[in-house]
Amino acid sequence: MPHDLVLTNARLADGRSGAHVAIDGGRITAIGEGTAPEAATVIDLGGALVLPGLTDGHMHLDKTLFGLPWWPHAAEPYRMSRIETDARVLPNLALGTAARAGELIRRCVAHGTAHIRTHADIRLEFGLAALEGVLEAKAAHEQACTVQVVAFPQAGVMRVPGTAELLDAAMRAGADLVGGIDPCEVDRDPKGQLDTLFALAERHGRGIDIHLHEPAEMGLFSLQEICARVRAHGMQGRVTISHGFCLGGLAESRQKAAAAMMAEVGVSLVTHGAGSATLPPLGVLREAGVQVFCGNDDVRDTWSPYGNADMLERASIIGWRIDWRTDPLLADLFGMVSSDGARALGIAEHGVDVGRPATLFTLPAETIAEAIGQHPPRRLVLFAGRVVARDGAFVAG
Amino acid sequence: MPHDLVLTNARLADGRSGAHVAIDGGRITAIGEGTAPEAATVIDLGGALVLPGLTDGHMHLDKTLFGLPWWPHAAEPYRMSRIETDARVLPNLALGTAARAGELIRRCVAHGTAHIRTHADIRLEFGLAALEGVLEAKAAHEQACTVQVVAFPQAGVMRVPGTAELLDAAMRAGADLVGGIDPCEVDRDPKGQLDTLFALAERHGRGIDIHLHEPAEMGLFSLQEICARVRAHGMQGRVTISHGFCLGGLAESRQKAAAAMMAEVGVSLVTHGAGSATLPPLGVLREAGVQVFCGNDDVRDTWSPYGNADMLERASIIGWRIDWRTDPLLADLFGMVSSDGARALGIAEHGVDVGRPATLFTLPAETIAEAIGQHPPRRLVLFAGRVVARDGAFVAG
Repeated sequence: MPHDLVLTNARLADGRSGAHVAIDGGRITAIGEGTAPEAATVIDLGGALVLPGLTDGHMHLDKTLFGLPWWPHAAEPYRMSRIETDARVLPNLALGTAARAGELIRRCVAHGTAHIRTHADIRLEFGLAALEGVLEAKAAHEQACTVQVVAFPQAGVMRVPGTAELLDAAMRAGADLVGGIDPCEVDRDPKGQLDTLFALAERHGRGIDIHLHEPAEMGLFSLQEICARVRAHGMQGRVTISHGFCLGGLAESRQKAAAAMMAEVGVSLVTHGAGSATLPPLGVLREAGVQVFCGNDDVRDTWSPYGNADMLERASIIGWRIDWRTDPLLADLFGMVSSDGARALGIAEHGVDVGRPATLFTLPAETIAEAIGQHPPRRLVLFAGRVVARDGAFVAG
Repeated sequence: MPHDLVLTNARLADGRSGAHVAIDGGRITAIGEGTAPEAATVIDLGGALVLPGLTDGHMHLDKTLFGLPWWPHAAEPYRMSRIETDARVLPNLALGTAARAGELIRRCVAHGTAHIRTHADIRLEFGLAALEGVLEAKAAHEQACTVQVVAFPQAGVMRVPGTAELLDAAMRAGADLVGGIDPCEVDRDPKGQLDTLFALAERHGRGIDIHLHEPAEMGLFSLQEICARVRAHGMQGRVTISHGFCLGGLAESRQKAAAAMMAEVGVSLVTHGAGSATLPPLGVLREAGVQVFCGNDDVRDTWSPYGNADMLERASIIGWRIDWRTDPLLADLFGMVSSDGARALGIAEHGVDVGRPATLFTLPAETIAEAIGQHPPRRLVLFAGRVVARDGAFVAG
């Protein structure tokens, strides 16, 4: 029986070249060298490197401005001013959430991303509209990538009465995780917010992903409170800290203690490289056993004019900032933007291996290190055996 | 008389669309709207944005590994270990300096870079070989970009007797500027190195570009010594500090004092965004009147696996790190990777204006801010009226 699809003339991450990858029913059924087996469809990769699909672990699909004419950054330079600007700007854009989120999803896919965790703003001004838009975009692209949605109380929980109830409604409406934000700095009530989030998560049997921008000792205080509740609620392995800038602003001894605490209760960290903030000590965290993964965060949206949705470019920025240069460290970095991220998102099967879903991409590079270092354009992107992008452009279903 | 070349359907940085740019004898002779004038050659830009050529103000063309199979990073993680590794690795590569430097120059050009300042290692182990290789690559690409070469004593000046004489020979052999490196940390003799560099610069009537990686107060000390000599030697406006990481590690009052001192003697700063080091306060420096420009620094070379020679991607990284988000700030940032850099390199004429050389590039973006934020691939690159790259690929002379 000929295979559904065979990719020939492939370079594999282990260094083999002239290899072939056979795909049937959306899964990899053979990887080999020598004469390629017969197939209904054969695609010659021309020596391109085959890598497993990328994971973008922190996005704001609902805030993007892709699909609209260029939109000059409008928010004043504070987090609270941006939160207020969002309330004014986002509901009045010429393009709705689903259309904008879809534009961004297609750019993610075109760059080889297979798995996305996005936040969707849950706040009184929007009700569940942002969530519903993101869920619509997710459904429209379910043949091209997975999308996991965090119900994100961008404007705070305790400071805006009614938000907790809205978060509860969001979980019932299809959100995958409970979100949170700076329990001290935004809500001025860490106990109130964290008790609320963990109760919601317990009620719905879902994980938590909390934005923690708070600096140094304030952020560490919040982190300690989070970890204590993870233990109390038996939520080991189901809670993520987004950003965790505080970890970059601590003395080494306290960084190590915080890392050990996170590892003990299985709290993971997702980073975009910290921009102008203090970067968490990713090496210290990994050595302590903390699961570290990466996301693009804001991509051309109401918060930032930067970004193009490329997780390999993101990896190169993060690696450059943490001074990782050797091939083994770049392989670790690739894990952080692919398999480690997939694991954090609960994706059971990931990797270019026989039996796994054929979720992969190709690019003109010799090694994983080169794929990150120069992040050349992606040639072919497959999701569960289906070609979803070619030469940097999304292929319509 | 028909023009040599007319670019039609152009978007200009001022927001005009459907414009045309006429070119004769390598210069822009008309910019207008409405019916395009006749020309021997017409290129329809399809609405692409036209921007002036980019300036890469800090490169190491002699160290790149482009053109070779992937080369895992081999140096231990210290500046001195990398300097020692270079001595062992660079002379024994399968591809000589000119070929590797040429590969990198073509990638620069393909990304819209028109003006490059590169360092070339001058050290006893190499003699003038690296300089000669870079000069050969420069000559081979003189129809595609300008290349300015700094005679760079990578291994130090005073700690390696004979280097000063070699620098002198390098200036006679065609280097454009005298280079230097960490007069305290590398040479352990700041007075010795700086007196030597300024004497060399005076003798040859050339400017100076000094790598200053030294942190905080040590770097500030060296900077003060440099500025004092600029004044004493009447070299105002002819000296550049490369990196200047120290400026990012000072109290605000001392940052401002250092910026005022640099502005007073016309010492400019070139930055690549500082990686894992402390980033100079670019806003403070600019407000004080210091000329700040940008460069890629190491691009896939013996020092770093990162980089693809794209100065718009570099601008996006720098802007993200310094938290510049608004269109006016992104316009300033574009100046730092184009006209400000050209001015620092002594390029007399720069810009998409009538009478100027037709040195420009096009890309699918609406605004300068988008060009930086998403840095899409370059479509067409012209140098002095000649098409030198198309769709991201260098066009052979």
